Amino acid sequence: MNYKKIAFDVMGSDNGLIPAVDAAIKLLGEQKDLKIIFVGKEDLIKNALKNKKYNIEQVDFLDCKEIIEMTDGIIDIRRKKDSSMVKALELVRDGKADAITTGGATAPFIAGCIFIIKRLESIERPAFMPVIPTLIKDKVTLLLDVGANLESDPEDLEKFALMANAYSKSILKVKEPKIALLNIGEEPSKGTEVHKKTYELLKNNSQINFYGNIESRYVTSGFVDVVVTDGYTGNMTLKAAEGMAKNLLFEIKQAITKTLFRKLAALRLKKAFNEVKAKFDYKNHAGAIVLGVDKIAFKSHGSSDVISFYATLKMTYNAIKNDVISNLKTSLNIK
Amino acid sequence: MNYKKIAFDVMGSDNGLIPAVDAAIKLLGEQKDLKIIFVGKEDLIKNALKNKKYNIEQVDFLDCKEIIEMTDGIIDIRRKKDSSMVKALELVRDGKADAITTGGATAPFIAGCIFIIKRLESIERPAFMPVIPTLIKDKVTLLLDVGANLESDPEDLEKFALMANAYSKSILKVKEPKIALLNIGEEPSKGTEVHKKTYELLKNNSQINFYGNIESRYVTSGFVDVVVTDGYTGNMTLKAAEGMAKNLLFEIKQAITKTLFRKLAALRLKKAFNEVKAKFDYKNHAGAIVLGVDKIAFKSHGSSDVISFYATLKMTYNAIKNDVISNLKTSLNIK
Repeated sequence: MNYKKIAFDVMGSDNGLIPAVDAAIKLLGEQKDLKIIFVGKEDLIKNALKNKKYNIEQVDFLDCKEIIEMTDGIIDIRRKKDSSMVKALELVRDGKADAITTGGATAPFIAGCIFIIKRLESIERPAFMPVIPTLIKDKVTLLLDVGANLESDPEDLEKFALMANAYSKSILKVKEPKIALLNIGEEPSKGTEVHKKTYELLKNNSQINFYGNIESRYVTSGFVDVVVTDGYTGNMTLKAAEGMAKNLLFEIKQAITKTLFRKLAALRLKKAFNEVKAKFDYKNHAGAIVLGVDKIAFKSHGSSDVISFYATLKMTYNAIKNDVISNLKTSLNIK
Repeated sequence: MNYKKIAFDVMGSDNGLIPAVDAAIKLLGEQKDLKIIFVGKEDLIKNALKNKKYNIEQVDFLDCKEIIEMTDGIIDIRRKKDSSMVKALELVRDGKADAITTGGATAPFIAGCIFIIKRLESIERPAFMPVIPTLIKDKVTLLLDVGANLESDPEDLEKFALMANAYSKSILKVKEPKIALLNIGEEPSKGTEVHKKTYELLKNNSQINFYGNIESRYVTSGFVDVVVTDGYTGNMTLKAAEGMAKNLLFEIKQAITKTLFRKLAALRLKKAFNEVKAKFDYKNHAGAIVLGVDKIAFKSHGSSDVISFYATLKMTYNAIKNDVISNLKTSLNIK
């Protein structure tokens, strides 16, 4: 069978490799044309696979001695040549896998994508792009960049918009994605010189359905399909929203379990709370793609559990299936 | 009696002047040494005061014809010389009031503070500073700047830290306020050149109890008393957190009222939800001070209701009572 192959770096995430392996088994059961190459300490992986039910044809291994740790920096991607992250990236570079998924450290991973997979032609700065849940049912918003770069110039931001546009169309099947520029206010005159120039570029780009500026308070409101920003601002905005969601949910949990009376009432709302959590919990949106490199590269949250890894692997699989790289190249006019 | 006097610009906020007047009446009843000078359309204000119980000694009026509208810009503070905002600022400048409170447009107000009240010696860029609720009971965090400036250099940021330090000590009675620098990661090496230089300045400033870098996800966690950042990043972070809180609370409300069964259970948790809302609703934290000008100047959220205006007026009153300007001057070494 002509398998779609994911090189899955199962080392280096906070919760060890068991949730990673479990998530892989789940997706393999669902997608019969998927092959997962487990990259990492083979004995540990095989141990985690013991007694699990799966089709052995769909599984492969690449044994590695080293691990890129959470505390490792960009430089370690050059130093740890036998690490699972480097080896998995090389599998993709060499065409032995169609995509990589990892739960490892972000900075070395992005650096590895750039050094090993290489950038797409005309892309100076690749972007790191998560999928954000919104108030609107089944609608997500793509936010980029959230931290692959600290700074971006208007031309970078225009390319982010073009890449996210192609992703939204090809993967999320949005017909004419609405694309907004993150800014401190809605008027075209708001923000820095970079904002003003980017506003003009996006407004005048006929490939893009430009919405205008959007404030960070509306990133989760579902008004648009794509929000473009520099990596520094995107990182701050994403973490501020995530942190508030986490703290608020914690606070609510404290309040509704304070007395026995409240606990009993809360039990009856368990399903309701689970619905909200399923939507706004980052576990279901733990995957982010490195956009602008020549292959499909997904990162799952460092503290991923089975749900998170499963969600990210599924996004990776969908990206292969919908040939996202060809779509990106077309939108960027790369032959 | 030697009254503490607030010039209260009651025009130009989204909900009209009635909530502003009602909030003032409430605080006047509680604080017998407070006088409020209502600045705005006198006939409308007097109409709103009709049938209200208050001590007429504690109330004064300044009639103005013009209003700074929400859509007005910085330039309008120069143009609308008979506006309530300008007139109220002039009362403070001329020593006829100890402080100003407004619910009007932010940008003209900050500009007005700088043009009319004037900056403190040595302060190039005043900051706009709200009070952020946190997970920890009765603990708030001061965040500055949230948008008075788009850019700040390390020296500005150090002054923000010194001013917030003095505010935290004198108004919030925190003994040794922990001060953090907002950044994309915790390590000293993180962020831009401005971050790295600011990190050094704060670390080496003996007046400051420096915590180190903090990520935006922890701004509402209550780890520190003050978070220092440039106005652009502060604005993005604050709005992202506010937006997420609002959207999440909305989503929960939808989920717990979807069926009759859920509605009934939710009724029993009304008090619990109100506790959470009271804490994280910006209404109770609607006030922000313009820090770095020579008088006390507070802005309440544009869409303030009675609760918001009351909270902001009370902050203003406390700032007068605790002589915040003298404390700021001392901490900045201004005689």
